[in-house]
Amino acid sequence: MSSKTQNLEKSDYVVRGFRAGAIAAGIKKRGGLDLALIFSEKEAIGAGVFTTNKVKAAPVVVSQEHMKNGRVRAIIANSGNANACTGEQGLISAKRMAEFAARELGIEAHEVVVASTGVIGAQIDTSLISGSIHDLASSLSEEGLLRALESIMTTDSFPKIARFQGSAGGKPYTIVGIAKGAGMIMPQMATMLCFLLTDISIGLAELKRELSLSVEKTFNRITVDGDTSTNDMVVVMANGMAGNELMSSADKESFRGGLTKVMYELATMIVRDGEGATKLIQIHVRGAASSNDALAAARTISNSPLVKTAFYGQDPNWGRIMAALGRSGVEMKQEDVEISVDHVKIVEGGVGMGVEREKEAAECMRNKEFSVTVDLRQGAYEDHVITCDLSHEYVSINADYRT
Amino acid sequence: MSSKTQNLEKSDYVVRGFRAGAIAAGIKKRGGLDLALIFSEKEAIGAGVFTTNKVKAAPVVVSQEHMKNGRVRAIIANSGNANACTGEQGLISAKRMAEFAARELGIEAHEVVVASTGVIGAQIDTSLISGSIHDLASSLSEEGLLRALESIMTTDSFPKIARFQGSAGGKPYTIVGIAKGAGMIMPQMATMLCFLLTDISIGLAELKRELSLSVEKTFNRITVDGDTSTNDMVVVMANGMAGNELMSSADKESFRGGLTKVMYELATMIVRDGEGATKLIQIHVRGAASSNDALAAARTISNSPLVKTAFYGQDPNWGRIMAALGRSGVEMKQEDVEISVDHVKIVEGGVGMGVEREKEAAECMRNKEFSVTVDLRQGAYEDHVITCDLSHEYVSINADYRT
Repeated sequence: MSSKTQNLEKSDYVVRGFRAGAIAAGIKKRGGLDLALIFSEKEAIGAGVFTTNKVKAAPVVVSQEHMKNGRVRAIIANSGNANACTGEQGLISAKRMAEFAARELGIEAHEVVVASTGVIGAQIDTSLISGSIHDLASSLSEEGLLRALESIMTTDSFPKIARFQGSAGGKPYTIVGIAKGAGMIMPQMATMLCFLLTDISIGLAELKRELSLSVEKTFNRITVDGDTSTNDMVVVMANGMAGNELMSSADKESFRGGLTKVMYELATMIVRDGEGATKLIQIHVRGAASSNDALAAARTISNSPLVKTAFYGQDPNWGRIMAALGRSGVEMKQEDVEISVDHVKIVEGGVGMGVEREKEAAECMRNKEFSVTVDLRQGAYEDHVITCDLSHEYVSINADYRT
Repeated sequence: MSSKTQNLEKSDYVVRGFRAGAIAAGIKKRGGLDLALIFSEKEAIGAGVFTTNKVKAAPVVVSQEHMKNGRVRAIIANSGNANACTGEQGLISAKRMAEFAARELGIEAHEVVVASTGVIGAQIDTSLISGSIHDLASSLSEEGLLRALESIMTTDSFPKIARFQGSAGGKPYTIVGIAKGAGMIMPQMATMLCFLLTDISIGLAELKRELSLSVEKTFNRITVDGDTSTNDMVVVMANGMAGNELMSSADKESFRGGLTKVMYELATMIVRDGEGATKLIQIHVRGAASSNDALAAARTISNSPLVKTAFYGQDPNWGRIMAALGRSGVEMKQEDVEISVDHVKIVEGGVGMGVEREKEAAECMRNKEFSVTVDLRQGAYEDHVITCDLSHEYVSINADYRT
């Protein structure tokens, strides 16, 4: 086991009936694990949410097609090449990846989800995948999920995995999710790779609905830099091996809570590991005139480079927050606005409350995590977005990514 | 004359009938010139375009009120304090600034435009202004515009001034513009301070129309970081001292060209001096299905942190441009897109044209200025935005601005 996941206990992340593995197929230029496989022994259902970007990578197009009937047995995922903006050839390559996996596993190609992450615009060399697919399948094991996770990490600085254990109809079940993230993270969906495995028995329509609801509350409430990717997907597989009967409404609520918890933890980890991020900030907007306004205000603040650099500088520069609000298009009156950092109010009636308060707020901002609450005092709606600061390191990572 | 404008010849920027001056009033914490005055000896008309941000600084509110009847004799402008988010007290302070200037100059307060730039949220100490207004008025001279310009510079690293000389009805006239810019620059108007002086004789309605047209073509086509400010304004004063009769349509066209040229030069200088900018990039979008699409695509690319860091890294990372297009909401087909850097085409049919082309493009990107052209091939509309790269220095400037 490499150092990336060495502090995690692999037996903690076993989900009944699922096996996973990974190998170094030579796709990543620098070497290392770069090809992952996840496999359900039994038939399983799957639901997915995919990038809303109009430029969709080949694996997104192919996976959306494959998931149409809701049957999913395997996920094959590579890092080192996004297979995006690769035209017809890219689509052929993505389909081949599914076919190679299907043949090796003895299942149908349309039961395989394909995911890719890495550089955009380069053709993927599928011979690297066909040449290693047998070894990849041989690497599958009940405790192999951490290795699969390692292999999809790119600029991630720590592994992102979360777990929930619940029971339905008296039968225990598990949800485990893994994710990779870092840059190109922004609300409006599916902005990373996230794979969720559960042994619960659940209907397809319900699984789809629960996934959408959870995505909306979690991955659609985070941002690193306002850019969305061409490759993002959240896929959940459920194989029913918990053997539970139909769920009671309490069971359903518990499952919803568990799924959301796992995804919330992963989403938060992604922001915490935003490229170059040194701080995690929850932007909470309340008193908005509509739910759209609440979210729009939170997003505009969360994506403002001037606000984000002030966070990096631990500077309670609320004027930049006001300026971001003012261009967010929401209903507001400057003279009604209140702003707090954690529990320190620094703006009331649209004006600053003085240097002492700002000093207190600056103290809060020295922490790794803090919140900014904006009360617009126009209505009863609220929402939040989780963001990070904009640091020198973000620029370094992204100026040098391909070189 | 301080070093900031030492390479400029002050006699080049004289406009008949206008005088200008500046002093160190103690508003800037670090000292230096921070209070400017511009004065028209004769009655003059004025037109202004102001920030679209809903959070408007007090001087913006007061100046909009003062300019309602179109008569303007003077501009008083300070740096070091934006007088924004300062509530009722801030409005009183802005009005006082106009009154102090009016009393000293023997004109009406409503003939004075007030402008401020600097830190948001701190009350401005008007005693610093009343205490120095006499000295400020005494500093007025025909050749004083460069000093006035120096005094409104904040994080600007070089002075922004431009000139046009034309003739109307056989009479020569001059247009001179000064601007300060740097951060918080973004389309959607008036994103800096810009003062334009001309001695042409022109009607108020016409002056207003020409200003709006020119703003749309110049200042509304630049971006540094996507943030808009609370204080921005472009104000033009015309005192008619050229003595020209009504303009012919050729004269009008020439004036329009001259005004746009001056404003284009200033706008370009502002981007070139964007906080931390090392490169100036023109993003040109053509083949769009509508004019809105053309502008939206250009703006989304121009504001993408991932694209801007790639520019900084001199990396023709066209995948990021594709991803930005994909989330811009414009009508597009991935497989139709063409992308060029200067005259080097790197994407055709939505896919990359290979490493050799990218190397050529990277060569172009080593220059201080280059263009990126995107052809969507969906229609006949085109537009452009001028932007800069996102550098380490941007983060440094904005993380440390108030400390």
